[in-house]
Amino acid sequence: MAASSFALSQAATTLSPSAALRHESSTNITQPPSSISTLSIPTFSGLKSTSTPSSRAVTPRRVSASRRRIISSAAVESLQKTDTSLVDKSVNTIRFLAIDAVEKANSGHPGLPMGCAPMGHILYDEVMRYNPKNPYWFNRDRFVLSAGHGCMLHYALLHLAGYDSVKEEDLKQFRQWGSKTPGHPENFETPGIEVTTGPLGQGIANAVGLAVAEKHLAARFNKPDAKIVDHYTYCILGDGCQMEGIANEACSLAGHWGLGKLIAFYDDNHISIDGDTEIAFTESVEKRFEALGWHIVWVKNGNNGYDDIRAAIKEAKAVTDKPTLIKVTTTIGFGSPNKANSYSVHGAALGAKEVDATRQNLGWPYEPFHVPEDVKKHWSRHTAEGAALEAEWNVKFGEYEKKYAEDAAELKSIADGVFPTGWEKALPKYTPDIPGDATRNLSQSCLNALAPVLPGLLGGSADLASSNMTLMKMFGDFQKNAPEERNVRFGVREHGMAAICNGIALHSPGFIPYCATFFVFTDYMRGAMRLSALSETGVIYVMTHDSIGLGEDGPTHQPIEHIASFRAMPNILMLRPADGNETAGAYKVAVENRKRPSVLALSRQKLPNLPGTSIEGVAKGGYIVSDDSSGNKPDVILIGTGSELEIAVKAADELRKDGKSVRVVSFVSWELFDEQSNEYKESVLPDSVTGRVSIEAGSTFGWERIVGSKGKAIGIDKFGASAPAGKIYKEYGITVEAVIAAAKEVC
Amino acid sequence: MAASSFALSQAATTLSPSAALRHESSTNITQPPSSISTLSIPTFSGLKSTSTPSSRAVTPRRVSASRRRIISSAAVESLQKTDTSLVDKSVNTIRFLAIDAVEKANSGHPGLPMGCAPMGHILYDEVMRYNPKNPYWFNRDRFVLSAGHGCMLHYALLHLAGYDSVKEEDLKQFRQWGSKTPGHPENFETPGIEVTTGPLGQGIANAVGLAVAEKHLAARFNKPDAKIVDHYTYCILGDGCQMEGIANEACSLAGHWGLGKLIAFYDDNHISIDGDTEIAFTESVEKRFEALGWHIVWVKNGNNGYDDIRAAIKEAKAVTDKPTLIKVTTTIGFGSPNKANSYSVHGAALGAKEVDATRQNLGWPYEPFHVPEDVKKHWSRHTAEGAALEAEWNVKFGEYEKKYAEDAAELKSIADGVFPTGWEKALPKYTPDIPGDATRNLSQSCLNALAPVLPGLLGGSADLASSNMTLMKMFGDFQKNAPEERNVRFGVREHGMAAICNGIALHSPGFIPYCATFFVFTDYMRGAMRLSALSETGVIYVMTHDSIGLGEDGPTHQPIEHIASFRAMPNILMLRPADGNETAGAYKVAVENRKRPSVLALSRQKLPNLPGTSIEGVAKGGYIVSDDSSGNKPDVILIGTGSELEIAVKAADELRKDGKSVRVVSFVSWELFDEQSNEYKESVLPDSVTGRVSIEAGSTFGWERIVGSKGKAIGIDKFGASAPAGKIYKEYGITVEAVIAAAKEVC
Repeated sequence: MAASSFALSQAATTLSPSAALRHESSTNITQPPSSISTLSIPTFSGLKSTSTPSSRAVTPRRVSASRRRIISSAAVESLQKTDTSLVDKSVNTIRFLAIDAVEKANSGHPGLPMGCAPMGHILYDEVMRYNPKNPYWFNRDRFVLSAGHGCMLHYALLHLAGYDSVKEEDLKQFRQWGSKTPGHPENFETPGIEVTTGPLGQGIANAVGLAVAEKHLAARFNKPDAKIVDHYTYCILGDGCQMEGIANEACSLAGHWGLGKLIAFYDDNHISIDGDTEIAFTESVEKRFEALGWHIVWVKNGNNGYDDIRAAIKEAKAVTDKPTLIKVTTTIGFGSPNKANSYSVHGAALGAKEVDATRQNLGWPYEPFHVPEDVKKHWSRHTAEGAALEAEWNVKFGEYEKKYAEDAAELKSIADGVFPTGWEKALPKYTPDIPGDATRNLSQSCLNALAPVLPGLLGGSADLASSNMTLMKMFGDFQKNAPEERNVRFGVREHGMAAICNGIALHSPGFIPYCATFFVFTDYMRGAMRLSALSETGVIYVMTHDSIGLGEDGPTHQPIEHIASFRAMPNILMLRPADGNETAGAYKVAVENRKRPSVLALSRQKLPNLPGTSIEGVAKGGYIVSDDSSGNKPDVILIGTGSELEIAVKAADELRKDGKSVRVVSFVSWELFDEQSNEYKESVLPDSVTGRVSIEAGSTFGWERIVGSKGKAIGIDKFGASAPAGKIYKEYGITVEAVIAAAKEVC
Repeated sequence: MAASSFALSQAATTLSPSAALRHESSTNITQPPSSISTLSIPTFSGLKSTSTPSSRAVTPRRVSASRRRIISSAAVESLQKTDTSLVDKSVNTIRFLAIDAVEKANSGHPGLPMGCAPMGHILYDEVMRYNPKNPYWFNRDRFVLSAGHGCMLHYALLHLAGYDSVKEEDLKQFRQWGSKTPGHPENFETPGIEVTTGPLGQGIANAVGLAVAEKHLAARFNKPDAKIVDHYTYCILGDGCQMEGIANEACSLAGHWGLGKLIAFYDDNHISIDGDTEIAFTESVEKRFEALGWHIVWVKNGNNGYDDIRAAIKEAKAVTDKPTLIKVTTTIGFGSPNKANSYSVHGAALGAKEVDATRQNLGWPYEPFHVPEDVKKHWSRHTAEGAALEAEWNVKFGEYEKKYAEDAAELKSIADGVFPTGWEKALPKYTPDIPGDATRNLSQSCLNALAPVLPGLLGGSADLASSNMTLMKMFGDFQKNAPEERNVRFGVREHGMAAICNGIALHSPGFIPYCATFFVFTDYMRGAMRLSALSETGVIYVMTHDSIGLGEDGPTHQPIEHIASFRAMPNILMLRPADGNETAGAYKVAVENRKRPSVLALSRQKLPNLPGTSIEGVAKGGYIVSDDSSGNKPDVILIGTGSELEIAVKAADELRKDGKSVRVVSFVSWELFDEQSNEYKESVLPDSVTGRVSIEAGSTFGWERIVGSKGKAIGIDKFGASAPAGKIYKEYGITVEAVIAAAKEVC
């Protein structure tokens, strides 16, 4: 599925004439509007691809009028009007593909595609640069449908544009078992879908991440003579996304970072599931986005104001120092005579009668799923043009590679996800004589060791960098005017942070985004973390202060159930290293797992480097740290994770003095252990040894799986408390004495 | 701890003269400013309590100028200036109590209390109406420190105001084991603390909930001749809170609802943990709040501009149709010569040397924890005055009760948390011949049955009312101009919704707030749900679409690990009812548990009413639905929850045909089962019967505890899929056949 960005698709071996023209026009238009008031927009060629002028050539200061502007037809009256009948036809094709697919599935959301078809058409047919035969071409424009329930819009566009992932048959299988067209957009199912949306607000935050990735790479790798990274990120979001806090978090950062190549369309249709947005959403979205530092344009007629939409995009591109929100007022379910502009068209099939009425109303005589020949023919050019765009870029990159070999290698590593050989040798190793340290500090050592050898490693903390220990000391802060840097300051915005990291990860497979906060605050970003797991992004979650061991901050800050809650989540690695070697091992695993996120639970408190721990052991999830038994039959197995492995080790020492044979197992990751062979598992936890005691300063929930019915799990099944850490450990019975007592009970 | 709101505290038996005067002035000031521009603020009596004029008497339309206004000393120059030396002294007392407590604990956050002491002083000494000897007096003003890390501010204020919960000894025990002064404010530890904050953004959302509660009760119970509900809600929030998405969600709703008696102070100190807020937070907060529909005032000198703060509060009260944000620019760590205005004073003790320097700088010659006599004497009046306020209110309520007996009884039920006898009889009962239904619909039947008999039941959905089935049909929507209604429209704001419900629940013990969304979106609000559990609010979470059974929406919408993740969380009830009787039983449990939130996982799909289910069974968590064995020794026990209980029942029928003796157990709530006697547990799950099979359309994580090492847990340990529900059940092996096969393996 993940075709290399650099692998040229078959169709791209020669430059098609039209694509060459397209490209030429895009580089030749170097006279952008000098200011909004004297906006001189070049003639749109209607259904021909319009140019995407270089955003770098404009004079941002003079264009960046931040007040809201209403784009109306009047504003573009100087344009040569193009015949819009084919545009209408293409837009209606999109509408009916959505209507028909939802109708056939008898499930889905026709309202948004019907309202947003015009902006969708203009984006995919006139504005965006992509290669349908290689959805992973590195320098493509990215598009995110944040209002993911309207995914039939996106599927219809991919279908028209010539993506092999969405054939007519796929449209007919909308929302069915095994299809490429699931009920919400899923990047891992459908090439051409960039991220996984549906849970509202995630997509716009992902889009911010994609735009961060572009801005960073462009600043880091472009040269005065070679603009090798250069694309836009587009997004459509609806009222639902706008209400979600995560969207405000991400958009506040987008404004702060000045993401000028992020262009978001706000589908302002005044309808949400419960009815008119008036019942719960009366704020001024434009004012709020102005406050967040965005440029705002309002397209009053999104239903067929094609020129207005084009002009808005033009204006958005001219503003290079701010992201732009294009508020597009649309009619949800446009064209449906009895259901348009009502919640009933939001999330249910129109029904046969209303489908007929809509066909009548929009003058659509065709069978379901039919794409008229002229529309088909018109869109067919994107295959050749896309191939040409990629081929041309490949030529450009070839030249870049010759002149800037080192940069090219780094960029290639990020674009293809192939890491420099031997990167893992940079990881530090520890011996018991090295003074102990908190695993959060050891984590920082790993990050700083890896940063020079992994070009795609970048990240930061939600305003806890000095507590989470996440700064890469050789780099500065990624900021509006320093986007080439790799330390990201997310502010106190956990949910937005995680979703932005998902966007960065899905921009290019070699990105290794990491983000950090206190472990307990995963509760704030679980929605985005679940999407890391589902959409297969290898985000590294650096979660410090991982237990009552944080002490005085008290129960609001002390995780209890969090480890268990991630062990229960599919496709995510929950790692709780115990010392230096295990922290290094956890990073090795996390970096290697590019399609599975990792959660690293790290201590605030100092921990000793223990004998027997190893990077290799961590990779197996659970392994023997020490054992004085013979014949794979210890009297008792003590199992610890993270900060409690030390307790297990100390208890073992005492028990051995009492004549018991004791095995100590570090159980750093259940998921990894589960993937080992039965032989290996038996070698660590023999079936015949039922005397097992686990200790972990968190919920015991789930530990029966490991310790069995006859074992004992020592943990914490209530909330924490505010006091010095040592005191809480003692009062909560997370002690050597408790392990010894339990061990004596079970063996 | 929860003294009845109506139980008069000892000190309140007589009206003190000063309180009587205070009250008189508060009702007699009926000439409010007719507009901001001609603001005529009554003389402040400095350290004497100032009046709180009736907000109802003002003419809101003429006062509601929404543009930002800067309050400066000039604006109040017509005021009679009061001698500020005692105010200074009181403010410095607050600062040093915070400094000294953090220093002694060598842990905590001195910066905020040092910066916010002036607004804290004015609120607790001059503005707020409360009774320190009865922190639960119903009509008290509420105060929330959303920036909870600065809790020493609040503890110092409670101490000065005469609350018994915070004596000098308690201040000295700050952040120590078992103390009343934990590291963040905890309502369940410290009377006088209204809600539990610390995780940023929660407090302001709780404050919105408190203000919703007041607005609702006032509209519902006040009479033209009896304003029986009438208090303000104050909140202090910092830059961190402002960055959190939850704060934007809640504040958008506050603006939408026009919560005129919510007054929030934004401690604008430009410093967060990572340094200057410039690195991640450059939006315009005022503009954003304007966009959200708030009134904005800016106090430029929050460090000692007492009159500015007073004038700002005055102005905020005059605007009755909008919440007010008072941006107070302060210096974090004010008074510390070397650490003020830096992140170093945010979250660590000053250190002995800097404490000395600060004492020197602010001219503070006293020992640690000393409250100067004149300050002590000055504050001492609040005991008598508070008692008088409550006594006076009790008299007023007595009159109300005589005239409006029915309303008084309802209000009393809400204020005291004592429900009408026999309320549970309203719950519907079902027999197997009644056609099946989705448990989300059965949930709506319960809500509609309970609404008339439980005066404090109110709530709604995050824009999914018609999917979650949460509307109470006899009531309209709670809105700005219809606050007496009980259906709340939260918009797509899950996190804000849950935190607002926490605020409502903690306003009065008889409130039973419920809120709803798809179960999977608990991921968006887990931060607030955990605080429901920790702070002992009995919020009812109505979580529908609880498994792959929702079908086509696909894996982004299908919960897998969610049931397990709540079973692992302390002090929360996870309930998954199987049919009509169990849904009714779940509501009975949820209503009865006023200090423990309940999560109700409900189906989208239709389920039959099963023989053997009962309301009483649900109360025990797990119970026998059918059994054809004798001697408590079935061949196999089949255990199901929710929609899968039907599968277990069908499998039992088949197995019995094969000659097996089968017990079917409904395991609706693990927590409740865990609380039963050992005898009861043995009667349901006898130790000797190891042949056990569980079936649940969710993660199997944790089920080993129930089925034991020899049993089998059927469930789903990967993400879901987009397809019709029946197809997914079949493909994922959640079937009768799978249960039969597993049963044959284990017995």
